[in-house]
Amino acid sequence: MSDIKESPRIAVCGVGAMGLDIIRVLHSRHANIVAGIVRPGSDKAGRHLGELAGVPGLAVPARADAERALSDARPDIVIVTVSTYLDDAQYEIFSSAVRAGANVITLAEEMLHPFATDNGLARELDALAKRHKVTVTGTGHQDAYWVNLISVLAGSTHDLGSVTGRLSWNVDDFGPTLAELQRVGTTAEEFTRWLGSAERRPTFTYYALHTLAEVIGLTPLGPAETTTEPVIAQRDTHCGVLGTTIRQGRLLGYVDTDVLYTKEGVRLSISSQGKVYEEGETDYNEWNLTDSDGNPTLHLRNSDVQSAHTTCATLVNRIPDVITARPGIVTIAELPQLRYWTGLHHA
Amino acid sequence: MSDIKESPRIAVCGVGAMGLDIIRVLHSRHANIVAGIVRPGSDKAGRHLGELAGVPGLAVPARADAERALSDARPDIVIVTVSTYLDDAQYEIFSSAVRAGANVITLAEEMLHPFATDNGLARELDALAKRHKVTVTGTGHQDAYWVNLISVLAGSTHDLGSVTGRLSWNVDDFGPTLAELQRVGTTAEEFTRWLGSAERRPTFTYYALHTLAEVIGLTPLGPAETTTEPVIAQRDTHCGVLGTTIRQGRLLGYVDTDVLYTKEGVRLSISSQGKVYEEGETDYNEWNLTDSDGNPTLHLRNSDVQSAHTTCATLVNRIPDVITARPGIVTIAELPQLRYWTGLHHA
Repeated sequence: MSDIKESPRIAVCGVGAMGLDIIRVLHSRHANIVAGIVRPGSDKAGRHLGELAGVPGLAVPARADAERALSDARPDIVIVTVSTYLDDAQYEIFSSAVRAGANVITLAEEMLHPFATDNGLARELDALAKRHKVTVTGTGHQDAYWVNLISVLAGSTHDLGSVTGRLSWNVDDFGPTLAELQRVGTTAEEFTRWLGSAERRPTFTYYALHTLAEVIGLTPLGPAETTTEPVIAQRDTHCGVLGTTIRQGRLLGYVDTDVLYTKEGVRLSISSQGKVYEEGETDYNEWNLTDSDGNPTLHLRNSDVQSAHTTCATLVNRIPDVITARPGIVTIAELPQLRYWTGLHHA
Repeated sequence: MSDIKESPRIAVCGVGAMGLDIIRVLHSRHANIVAGIVRPGSDKAGRHLGELAGVPGLAVPARADAERALSDARPDIVIVTVSTYLDDAQYEIFSSAVRAGANVITLAEEMLHPFATDNGLARELDALAKRHKVTVTGTGHQDAYWVNLISVLAGSTHDLGSVTGRLSWNVDDFGPTLAELQRVGTTAEEFTRWLGSAERRPTFTYYALHTLAEVIGLTPLGPAETTTEPVIAQRDTHCGVLGTTIRQGRLLGYVDTDVLYTKEGVRLSISSQGKVYEEGETDYNEWNLTDSDGNPTLHLRNSDVQSAHTTCATLVNRIPDVITARPGIVTIAELPQLRYWTGLHHA
């Protein structure tokens, strides 16, 4: 367990949209950015983080030689924003940081709750982190909006029967790749065929639901189950990111619903809708609790959510928690309540 | 620091509306209620808690001899729901429980943040609790809805400029005494005269605002300042609890606004509206955050809040936290994140 320093030495690994937003947040809060790491062969290697992120004066080069860069910079913590799942490539990155004696904080969704879905690699990484006396933690938007706000809300009821989340994001806010992944513009038949044949990885909300159970103190009866429903255009709808019009009757996107049943009889679920928005639609995050008879009890809504930004800000505010946490893979269920990092306020 | 037992021995001191709702919650969750205490001379003395709360089978008598009752029942924790402020009468109750070796959990609003407003009694009680190795904590609706949800929300932003809460409650949900305290039916002139002459105690939200600052990690520049505005009836409006019609131009109630400025430049405020509702109005709890330039960033809304009930449920869910906390007066800023007490779930 390291002590939290006034201004820890921070390295950023991955300088895509998320990594660059995090660099801008850290820079505006006068954090101590000591290294930037990109994958070998990246055309960003050698360029300065300040130039890449559009913040003049941050003369830290992006380096493709991760191990050398880490041993030169000696960061207290490495922020990793390169991918979603704990696969071999991600393991390599995490373990390089850990072997360099740095804590790791990541947006990789699987790292919110890694033991259930990739037990082998998770246990290996956990042992490695313990050996090097550092912590590895996954966080992001879901830490606040899909887990901890909801757990506090549940703490104000005496009869918990079900917890149901609904959230929505706009396909047009992301790239064309994601629009295709979200099956935008396909027919209902094509969608059904795809759904039947697709080997899909767990959804992002899958990990959040298991973490929510852990934070509330509920025991899952099995893994969360996912069902998927198309969202069909009721009228011709423009899709900006594909530069095309989705005809009435075709897909604007789809909704994934994860459901987790628990030993305590509490049903947890999240429906995540990703679609091309019509005029006037905005992102939201909404949760409803019922008692054990199904009567509505508590309600929480966040309107106009900026989840890309809250993801980056939450990660930054979690840095002191991760530096002071016990060694090993530590999920947010073990961290203290999420709070604003005042140590960096107008620093 | 006591260990949390599977089912702690619980005494309830005060059997008004809140105390009875708490007894119903505890009973429905099969908690171990071992004593009930009422003030000397109360006509409820000798009656059973089950009869008073309408839950047959709870054959625990309400006793007016507090010290004997506590020494007979040996509770692990005493729930106190008798008044708002840490005055001499409240001190007597708290200290009897503490001297009997019991932890204390209370809805008394001042106990959410007692050192600033009644330093003398608070320090005395703190020392007494430390000597007896028990904890004294104030909690309630404000714990979740005015402090901890907001702190988690603030943990998802990187540029915190202001935090503004708005909440509303219906005078008709409470007794006629409160309607009169809320100046229902008076003229604007009468209200202004009263406001100029009134020696008002701190508002309930005052304590929550100071606790919110503490939980976020902000340093108040001074005490929160309160301003008060009348709510004038725009049309004749029926007031159920007074059994009368409030004429257009007269007061439906008023709004208290507390503002707290902090060393970090973050402005915290809460506006609490208590008025006779018109058709279709319901209670809400709404918070808006801005960045340091005043631009809106984050938003949270709880609609149809049942604050009497969330007050009682939150207190019950906080029992294990208070039993395991360090000795002394411990505010919710020091407690772990509020969560549902699964130990009592369908127990």
